Amino acid sequence: MIFASDNWAGAHPAINERLMKESTRFAAAYGTSELDQAIEKKFNKVFEREVAVFFVGTGTAANSLALASVARPGGIAFCHSEAHVIEDECGAPIYFSNASRLMPVAGPNGKMLPKNLKAAIDRFPPGSIHQGQPMLVTMTQATEQGTIYDLDEISAISEIAKGAGVPLHMDGARFANALTALDTTPAEMTWKRGVDILSFGATKNGCWCAEAIVYMDPKMAEDLPFIRKRSAQLFSKTRFMAAQFDAYFQNDLWLELAAHANAMANRLRDGLSASNSARLAWPTQSNELFVVLDKQSAKAARDAGASFYDWPVPHDMQQPVGENEQLIRLVTSFATEESDVDSFLRICGRA
Amino acid sequence: MIFASDNWAGAHPAINERLMKESTRFAAAYGTSELDQAIEKKFNKVFEREVAVFFVGTGTAANSLALASVARPGGIAFCHSEAHVIEDECGAPIYFSNASRLMPVAGPNGKMLPKNLKAAIDRFPPGSIHQGQPMLVTMTQATEQGTIYDLDEISAISEIAKGAGVPLHMDGARFANALTALDTTPAEMTWKRGVDILSFGATKNGCWCAEAIVYMDPKMAEDLPFIRKRSAQLFSKTRFMAAQFDAYFQNDLWLELAAHANAMANRLRDGLSASNSARLAWPTQSNELFVVLDKQSAKAARDAGASFYDWPVPHDMQQPVGENEQLIRLVTSFATEESDVDSFLRICGRA
Amino acid sequence: MIFASDNWAGAHPAINERLMKESTRFAAAYGTSELDQAIEKKFNKVFEREVAVFFVGTGTAANSLALASVARPGGIAFCHSEAHVIEDECGAPIYFSNASRLMPVAGPNGKMLPKNLKAAIDRFPPGSIHQGQPMLVTMTQATEQGTIYDLDEISAISEIAKGAGVPLHMDGARFANALTALDTTPAEMTWKRGVDILSFGATKNGCWCAEAIVYMDPKMAEDLPFIRKRSAQLFSKTRFMAAQFDAYFQNDLWLELAAHANAMANRLRDGLSASNSARLAWPTQSNELFVVLDKQSAKAARDAGASFYDWPVPHDMQQPVGENEQLIRLVTSFATEESDVDSFLRICGRA
Amino acid sequence: MIFASDNWAGAHPAINERLMKESTRFAAAYGTSELDQAIEKKFNKVFEREVAVFFVGTGTAANSLALASVARPGGIAFCHSEAHVIEDECGAPIYFSNASRLMPVAGPNGKMLPKNLKAAIDRFPPGSIHQGQPMLVTMTQATEQGTIYDLDEISAISEIAKGAGVPLHMDGARFANALTALDTTPAEMTWKRGVDILSFGATKNGCWCAEAIVYMDPKMAEDLPFIRKRSAQLFSKTRFMAAQFDAYFQNDLWLELAAHANAMANRLRDGLSASNSARLAWPTQSNELFVVLDKQSAKAARDAGASFYDWPVPHDMQQPVGENEQLIRLVTSFATEESDVDSFLRICGRA
Repeated sequence: MIFASDNWAGAHPAINERLMKESTRFAAAYGTSELDQAIEKKFNKVFEREVAVFFVGTGTAANSLALASVARPGGIAFCHSEAHVIEDECGAPIYFSNASRLMPVAGPNGKMLPKNLKAAIDRFPPGSIHQGQPMLVTMTQATEQGTIYDLDEISAISEIAKGAGVPLHMDGARFANALTALDTTPAEMTWKRGVDILSFGATKNGCWCAEAIVYMDPKMAEDLPFIRKRSAQLFSKTRFMAAQFDAYFQNDLWLELAAHANAMANRLRDGLSASNSARLAWPTQSNELFVVLDKQSAKAARDAGASFYDWPVPHDMQQPVGENEQLIRLVTSFATEESDVDSFLRICGRA
Repeated sequence: MIFASDNWAGAHPAINERLMKESTRFAAAYGTSELDQAIEKKFNKVFEREVAVFFVGTGTAANSLALASVARPGGIAFCHSEAHVIEDECGAPIYFSNASRLMPVAGPNGKMLPKNLKAAIDRFPPGSIHQGQPMLVTMTQATEQGTIYDLDEISAISEIAKGAGVPLHMDGARFANALTALDTTPAEMTWKRGVDILSFGATKNGCWCAEAIVYMDPKMAEDLPFIRKRSAQLFSKTRFMAAQFDAYFQNDLWLELAAHANAMANRLRDGLSASNSARLAWPTQSNELFVVLDKQSAKAARDAGASFYDWPVPHDMQQPVGENEQLIRLVTSFATEESDVDSFLRICGRA
Repeated sequence: MIFASDNWAGAHPAINERLMKESTRFAAAYGTSELDQAIEKKFNKVFEREVAVFFVGTGTAANSLALASVARPGGIAFCHSEAHVIEDECGAPIYFSNASRLMPVAGPNGKMLPKNLKAAIDRFPPGSIHQGQPMLVTMTQATEQGTIYDLDEISAISEIAKGAGVPLHMDGARFANALTALDTTPAEMTWKRGVDILSFGATKNGCWCAEAIVYMDPKMAEDLPFIRKRSAQLFSKTRFMAAQFDAYFQNDLWLELAAHANAMANRLRDGLSASNSARLAWPTQSNELFVVLDKQSAKAARDAGASFYDWPVPHDMQQPVGENEQLIRLVTSFATEESDVDSFLRICGRA
Repeated sequence: MIFASDNWAGAHPAINERLMKESTRFAAAYGTSELDQAIEKKFNKVFEREVAVFFVGTGTAANSLALASVARPGGIAFCHSEAHVIEDECGAPIYFSNASRLMPVAGPNGKMLPKNLKAAIDRFPPGSIHQGQPMLVTMTQATEQGTIYDLDEISAISEIAKGAGVPLHMDGARFANALTALDTTPAEMTWKRGVDILSFGATKNGCWCAEAIVYMDPKMAEDLPFIRKRSAQLFSKTRFMAAQFDAYFQNDLWLELAAHANAMANRLRDGLSASNSARLAWPTQSNELFVVLDKQSAKAARDAGASFYDWPVPHDMQQPVGENEQLIRLVTSFATEESDVDSFLRICGRA
């Protein structure tokens, strides 16, 4: 009953198998092998256009280098006030983008409210020398709150970014989960709606270490090879990342794994909704659930071996958390088993 | 006949097997799992003292974060003029150490000459506000030229560093190869001779991605957890690195693999020395050979599928390279097969 | 009728005279002259203890280098949400402190509320590797809203900083104005209340370019000479700054000038309070006034040559600004003449 | 007999007078006053084209911000191996240009030899991801060795820079001295010969603090306002710098002052050349002289109150420095008096 995080899971057997196969041969290093190049091309197919792809080691690296590539002096990046880039990356995006500023934008359920974003950007008209200049809007899909921007919401955000003359970045640490939940295509969820740069995460969804930065317009990425090397993110045996992506895309494995994780989350949600001991903190749509659980159930579950995190109560939460309750986060993954979900539900139902 | 680089090799089966085993289970992320901690303890045993260990993704990251951890304003790090940190990492060590300066120190065969190092440091006495202040000496073991500092040479370097009040870092991308060649212990080759920080590389020696920064005095590393996260080098499934190190140390696999690579280099050396078509550019002692080969042999070898790099002729090379010759680099690895060495020698002998 | 800012004023005749005298002689450069050292000693007397003093060219430099000197990886500095460091310095404090994060702390009238500061810091307990680590609290005295922390309020802030193990910095761009308004001593307003580092501004109060960073404990400043040079803030003819400070402290000129500026602000305040066309937006105590003025008066004053800035209405302002009103800022200085104040009041009274 | 440095001099009376006049009035801050703008226009006239001008506080700032404005990831700037930017600015140019690398280029008499520059740049062809990419060539005029690039030599350097697709910067800390010595025009010595960015120094030539960055093509400077503010170099009362430049250009004062300094250097040179106790270390052409003096004379001069610096003997110096000799540097300025020169010569002649 591991619901602590999707990065507590291991790696999917198909990923492993592909890695094994790759490990027995020699190939050119530093991203120049045929496999590296073949997988970069595979991204073109996935995104239905020529994109520029750069493998990096962590999601934080993907986000940080994306920001680095659009850095301006006095630059300001706009993100949701609870975004991973501002709250959970120890300042890495600031560090790599030459000391830019991350400006939090409020909005319910982990999503920037367009009018708040607009107002935040409007504080920095051209020539605001003492205040700085907008350089990027970054959104998270799926969000840290387990919610998803629908396609029109993405368009609304991107229109504001375009209006301000800055690119739009999407932190897709859980890109596959969002994609599956929306039942749409990578192209539709990104460049067709105005996304310029994507942090494409695969580690949480069955790989052991596979992240990529995807530029919808390769011209934007001309300096990225230098940025990546200068940032210590050019791996010598990078083809082992390429190999993971190879298996990841094979027969739509990635979508299948994300669909499983989402289904497990739905099963949890349905079970908990039907229970007397729990209620959803807010509607979630991907593989993260935020649940107000009675403390007795939480204790019982933990005693039975379940792992999950307590979560700080947002100050704008609508229904208050009672004294005998606590807010918890439950995350499912490709490796979550139905039986674990059912055990957890049984304990909560019983307590 | 792949002699291009040791990072063209894949991964050793024992490493793979251990990774497979790890992939089927859940475990805590970001370096907090029991396995991570157990492997960190294994380093204590390897180094015969309590050390602080941090896994990172690339050798450049290990070097760069080592420098970052000792950064001073106006800081200057001293390295050999051909060192990887100054010549091959696109400025990453400068970047991560808050814009320090890398000062090249000359010396034959890839090794800093102690008197040159001393003179270089002496240019920056305390209070050299306009020039900057020494912050680190960094040496490479084995060097980029395939040579090795013997233990007394390490002591000579460390005494100068100590005298200047700065720590000594060792870039050990090929640590195991040097260790094996010197037939000494990790403790003897590092802290017993005054090394304070070590970039401990395993990727080139049979892992697919396993690098560590080792602090001989854990107190020096107090800020490293933040530096690593801020530098985008804290991997979520870092236990997959730990697993590689687990297999790497098991039954001294790492020493065995390095010994094999060195033996293959020796076999190449002996064969080429006996040949009329080649001579050693300078004496090398690990798994890298620099050879002056007649162009006909070089072409024949490449036509037969051999891969290796041409190398720029150092300006201080003693015996000139003739018109019909070229300087090449040959690198062996854990995966180099004796038959490939012999094929290569046969071609060179024949041409 | 220049009320736009105190940095629109020129320089006081006594400052000029001293500069003239200095200009005719030779002296050692880069802060090593006897005058430089004598003035540094004068600061000891002013602060009643041995302090370390560093002249720099701008208030932004003073603040930024102060932050640089306490930078930690993943470091977080806490400031009021409207502080100059976060809102008006184009990210310089972030830039010079190696990409730290500035965390806004709310509080009425430009002052951090201690409980808000405490809560903000408490979000980052030791070991918050993903979030970062507190490195500094910085307060502004007088504040950007023209208010002043009284001595007990300074103590309350410093106790929280001490409790978190971080130093306390004071942005004293208008230090003299605050000091005079509180009728206290520099020692009392700083180190006796727990301030560790001070940006000591003199430019706004009669100098043309004289700013200093003052460390109450010189040991904290050991790297500052390198930081200052590396930051391009070591002036060759720095003795011309020293000369300004010489005249500034002579016969308490600085206190006299600040008292004058404050008196002019009081005169404005009293006059406007008595008027039907204006009211104070909030109580201010130094040389900055924030006034809600009827638009007719504002226009009449501008038509008559008055200069002042419109000010954005804070979202937490208690009495709303009416449709026929606007919020303006009025700043007085050493150079403000009583007759200008009276002319302005007359116009506002008449309109 | 102050020959230590031209920045030991004070300020010229005409500069002072202009500052006094400026000090009595109010004007807009942060470079927006009419005077600031008028002086910026004056630079257009001086350079015979529309240029972009930015006042900063130090020569190090001018150089560093120039580099910052052309920074690339993994960027490399090429300079003479003895240049101020690499040897005397505590790494500031590296720091402000986002951790670029400064690559020393050798050449006699403080001047980069074109073929050496070409060879240095050629080491970094496009796509040298592991090594970095050229971003700038920077030359010093007059050089640190007191020599001057003639116009054809400037063209030779600029052609190489253009060929590599990188801009050419000139560190003109002693621009006026070089200009006067060459008897040419600012336009001719800069953009007509391919210089793109100029650090225009006036502090050493009679101002007390006046430095400017001049972009020959204003489009290159679009981000400079943000860079300058972010670098803490936007002075509030910047019009006091403008005022200095106003007087500096008035009636060609600047050329007159530089001509005087150069004449004093020539007088020193002629006198010392005729003496038995001294010889020129190498030919110099501006206001810096490098002289091999017998130790007795040096002591006698110092005993008589002369101040000057001993200088390290360059390793490629042609005539060795004898045991009874020492290499010294003598610098003249606008404030050097003929009588001091003659006293110095008398002492040397006598000893």
